[in-house]
Parts: sequence; structure tokens; C-alpha cells
Amino acid sequence: MKSIFYSRFFILLPWILIVIIVIDIDTKRLSVRNTASFYLSRLGNVQQRQVVRTTRTSSSSSGSNTTSPPVIYAITPTYSRPVQKAELTRLANTFRQVPQFHWVVVEDSNSHTELVARFLARSGLRYTLLNVFTPRRFKRTGMPRATEQRNLALGWLRGHRASKDKGVVFFADDDNTYSLELFEEMRSTRRVSVWPVGLVGGRRYERPLVEKGKVVGWYTGWRADRPFAIDMAGFAVNLQVILSNPRALFKRRGAKPGMQESDFLKQITKVEDLEPKAQNCTQVLVWHTRTEKAHLGNETKRQQDSVFIEV
Amino acid sequence: MKSIFYSRFFILLPWILIVIIVIDIDTKRLSVRNTASFYLSRLGNVQQRQVVRTTRTSSSSSGSNTTSPPVIYAITPTYSRPVQKAELTRLANTFRQVPQFHWVVVEDSNSHTELVARFLARSGLRYTLLNVFTPRRFKRTGMPRATEQRNLALGWLRGHRASKDKGVVFFADDDNTYSLELFEEMRSTRRVSVWPVGLVGGRRYERPLVEKGKVVGWYTGWRADRPFAIDMAGFAVNLQVILSNPRALFKRRGAKPGMQESDFLKQITKVEDLEPKAQNCTQVLVWHTRTEKAHLGNETKRQQDSVFIEV
Repeated sequence: MKSIFYSRFFILLPWILIVIIVIDIDTKRLSVRNTASFYLSRLGNVQQRQVVRTTRTSSSSSGSNTTSPPVIYAITPTYSRPVQKAELTRLANTFRQVPQFHWVVVEDSNSHTELVARFLARSGLRYTLLNVFTPRRFKRTGMPRATEQRNLALGWLRGHRASKDKGVVFFADDDNTYSLELFEEMRSTRRVSVWPVGLVGGRRYERPLVEKGKVVGWYTGWRADRPFAIDMAGFAVNLQVILSNPRALFKRRGAKPGMQESDFLKQITKVEDLEPKAQNCTQVLVWHTRTEKAHLGNETKRQQDSVFIEV
Repeated sequence: MKSIFYSRFFILLPWILIVIIVIDIDTKRLSVRNTASFYLSRLGNVQQRQVVRTTRTSSSSSGSNTTSPPVIYAITPTYSRPVQKAELTRLANTFRQVPQFHWVVVEDSNSHTELVARFLARSGLRYTLLNVFTPRRFKRTGMPRATEQRNLALGWLRGHRASKDKGVVFFADDDNTYSLELFEEMRSTRRVSVWPVGLVGGRRYERPLVEKGKVVGWYTGWRADRPFAIDMAGFAVNLQVILSNPRALFKRRGAKPGMQESDFLKQITKVEDLEPKAQNCTQVLVWHTRTEKAHLGNETKRQQDSVFIEV
């Protein structure tokens, strides 16, 4: 009787061990995979390539769920000019290192340009390419710029994202300079967050003045009477605020110079509700840089090249 | 007899299975780890942080051995101005994605500035910070710029790198725009390699003209008589060429405008020996962008801020 018990025990024991080991492997492999994808996502979206190639993306591709951090939707209006590809190149080099990032690029043109479409397809970033042409009558000095492009991007978000999607919306003009820290600051935006912007308003920086965690005024060198004396690069909006205020848009008619930001923000928030980021608005993490127009005065002189080269 | 055989078989079989599974796990875990580190190394040096904090680095820290690809030494002269930190920010965002990269930053100042030193320490990049002040008499329009800074960097390489070190030296000015592809092109430089540069010489691009894999002339809109009609951003030099030509330097005295590159290159190579990169010099992978000076006209107007904020 005793020997039967032992023999059964020795037959069963290894099988139990096998089951335990197999269960253990599956758990460990999963965790190894998760660790790897954690680093990959920290280091950028290069390998994710959850590329959204058309504007017809369903919201299922937003990749957001209850565990992952909110997706940052950077809205970038752009237009054809000699420095365009250079600007997009250094933007993509920055954005590639931001995890959970979706680039909404809106061209000022009647159709996608080959240059931008090809550039984005090769960028390794998750993106959506849109386009809308700014009517010629709006392209004058003193007129607000990129209004149609930003509004089209807002419309796209409202049509393709739903209340289950976690996200933060940011207006990332194509010639500014962005630090990686900026994106981690804005990611926790609950409604509307604000921070300083460098090299703007004729000063070293503009910033919201903060007291006891609330915005109480603005440090600016230009039109201090603006309700929100802030640059387009100085705030982010939670995706749900964009979705729950479907009529909030940038104004074309009646917009005064420098008032685009205020006109938009007063539709969705109040100054006292703003969330200060970047250590109570005491760090400059984004710069309003401007790139010189390229001088092409010698383009027509001397010999022409025998091949076409994209610049 | 038969029953004893079967019972032994059923006792041994699971133990054999256990051994096989355990061996299998170890192999797989190793391969998962290797794959992860492969992607990590491809995605950049963020996790490497082989930071060289002082100029007293011994050549042992160069990290080069027979199996790893050559280190790219990017020499960046820089000087204090309102847009400096913004420029360094976007440069670092690009360079962080280049594997085997070493940034040699040379300030035009009498000592390291706090801004640059702190920025580099936080950048996550392998770097060396040097400084040399350009005498005031050389800071005039028409005079070549950053001569002293580039020469100091060349001196540092000669003092801290040896014949066993594999590397490629590139002059990366702080306001240009660099694609990641550029660095992979230059990495295979055996002696001196060349490629097109966008937005330079008053044209969309300048480029070496290539026939049968050899440079036979220059496509340029400006001073076509230059022996090497190429911008500082248009060439790279193998580290061993720098080391074996210890007297090759940038000239200050007698240097004519636009001749810095030619004056330097003719000390180390001939036009017919240049190695064309970027598909026989038909792709623009670097742009000679220029950032506008920041307008700080309102800096002294109105109230001053109560805190000091670095920009």
C-alpha cells in the first residue's frame, strides 16, 4: 500500500512541476514583453508604427485604454515653403521620443502635397494628415494665421474620438522648439493647463502668474489686457473638453491680432480654472523660435541641375 | 517485466520534459533580452548615458572596439544668445536618437556657462564641453566664425583619441537641421565623405556633382571657383585622418569669406578622393537653416518678473 502511494507520488510530482513551470514561463514572457514595450514606448514610437494613414481612422485605433497614459494630439498647421521639410524633420525628431503621441498635421493646400505625405509615411510616427486651403483674402498681414487648419483638426478629433478616449490636445506650430519635458507636463491636463513660453511678446518669455496654485495674472510685454495673455504654444486642453464643447473653434471673423488664443480659451474655460504646469509656471520648456526665410536669390543664376532633388 | 518498463518510462518521461523545458526557457529569455537591447540601441543612447562630464576623459571611455560601429564626434561651436538653449534643445532631441554618438560642444566664452553645462548634464547624451573665447578683433562681419572653437575640438580629439579608436568627425553648427539618415550615411566614412546641403549659397541646395562614383565638380550658386564648394555641414572626416594630420586646422589669418571649408579640406584630401554619400549626392539630408534673432524690445517695458527664469 505504502509502495503504491510512493510510486503514484513520484509519477504525479513531475507532472505537477511541469504545469507549474509552464504557467511560470507564460507569466515571465508576458512581463519581459511588457518591460520591453515600456522602454520602447518611452523611447518613442519608432517601433510602434500605429500609423494612421488616412483621415478615415476609426476611434478604435486611438490606442487608449484605462491603463495607458493619455494620448497627446499635437495639431500642426503647415504650409509649403523652402524650409518646410527642415522644420518637419526637427519636429519629427522631437516627437519620436514622446510616448503615446499622435501628430495631426494640417496642410494649407487643396490636396495633400507629396512632400508632406511621403515625409509622414517615413517618419515612424502615428499621424493623421489633413488639408484645407486658406482663402486668399485671409492671407494678409495682421490677419490671424492657420485658423482653418486648427479648426479642421478640432473637427477631425470630434468626428474620430469618443468619450472613452483619453487624450490631451496641443497646438504645435511647425517652427517652435519643444523640450521633451513639456509633453510630460501637459499629459496630466484635466481641463486646460498653461505654462510659460520663451522668446515671445518681445520678451525673453511670457508666463501666467501663479498664486496658491491658481493663475492670477500674466507676465507679458505686449497687450496685457488680453483675457488670456498666452501664446498658442502655452496651453493644452483635455480631449474631453474639446469633445464636450463641440462649438468651440478659432474665430476668423472679428478676430483681432493676438486674440486667437483668448477667443478660443474663453469658450472652454475661465482664468481661475487654469491648471499651472512647469513648477507653477516658472520653467521655460517651449520656445517661440522663428526660422529665417531661405534666401534663394542665386537659384536662377548659373547652371541648373540635371536632376530634381527634394529639399 | 513489461509493467516495470512502463512504470520507469512514465517516471522518467516527465523529468526529461522538465529538463527540456528549463533549457528552452533560458534560451528564449536570452533571445528576448537580446532583441530588446537591439531595439534600444537602435532607438538611441537614452539608456546608455555613457556621459563624459569633463574634458579629462581618457581614451578608454571612447567606447569603441572592433565590433561596435564608429563613434560619430559632432563638433558644435556655440555662443550665448537668447535662442541658444532652444537651439541646443532641438539638437539634443535629434542627437539622442543617433547611436554611438559623442557631442563635442565648444562655447565661445572664457569659462563654461552654467546654462550649457547644466543642459548637457541633463541631456542624456555622451558629451565633452570645452570653451575658448574668440578675441574681439575677429568678431567682425566678413570674418570666418567659430575658427578657434573648431580647432580646440580638433585638438581635444588629438589629445584624447588614439589609433585604436574608430570614429567619424562632423562639424555640426547649432542652428542647422539634421535628419537621422545623415548620421548613418556619414558613419561609413573611410577618409572624407561629402553630400548635398539644403538652403545654402542662395539656392535650394548645393551639392557635389558625381560621375562614376567620383566627385567631378560642384553645383552651387555662389563662388563656384572654391576648390571645395561645400558648406561646413556637407562633409565628414574619419577620426584617423584627423589624428594622422596633426597640423590640419581651420585658418584664421588669411582666410577669405567662404573659404574655411576649402582651406581645411585641402590639408587632408583631394577632390578626386572624396567619398560621395546620400545616393551619389542626390539626397538632401541636412539643411542650413537660420534662426531669427529673438526680438526683445519689450523686455525693459512694464513690470519686471519677481523670479529669475532661465530661457
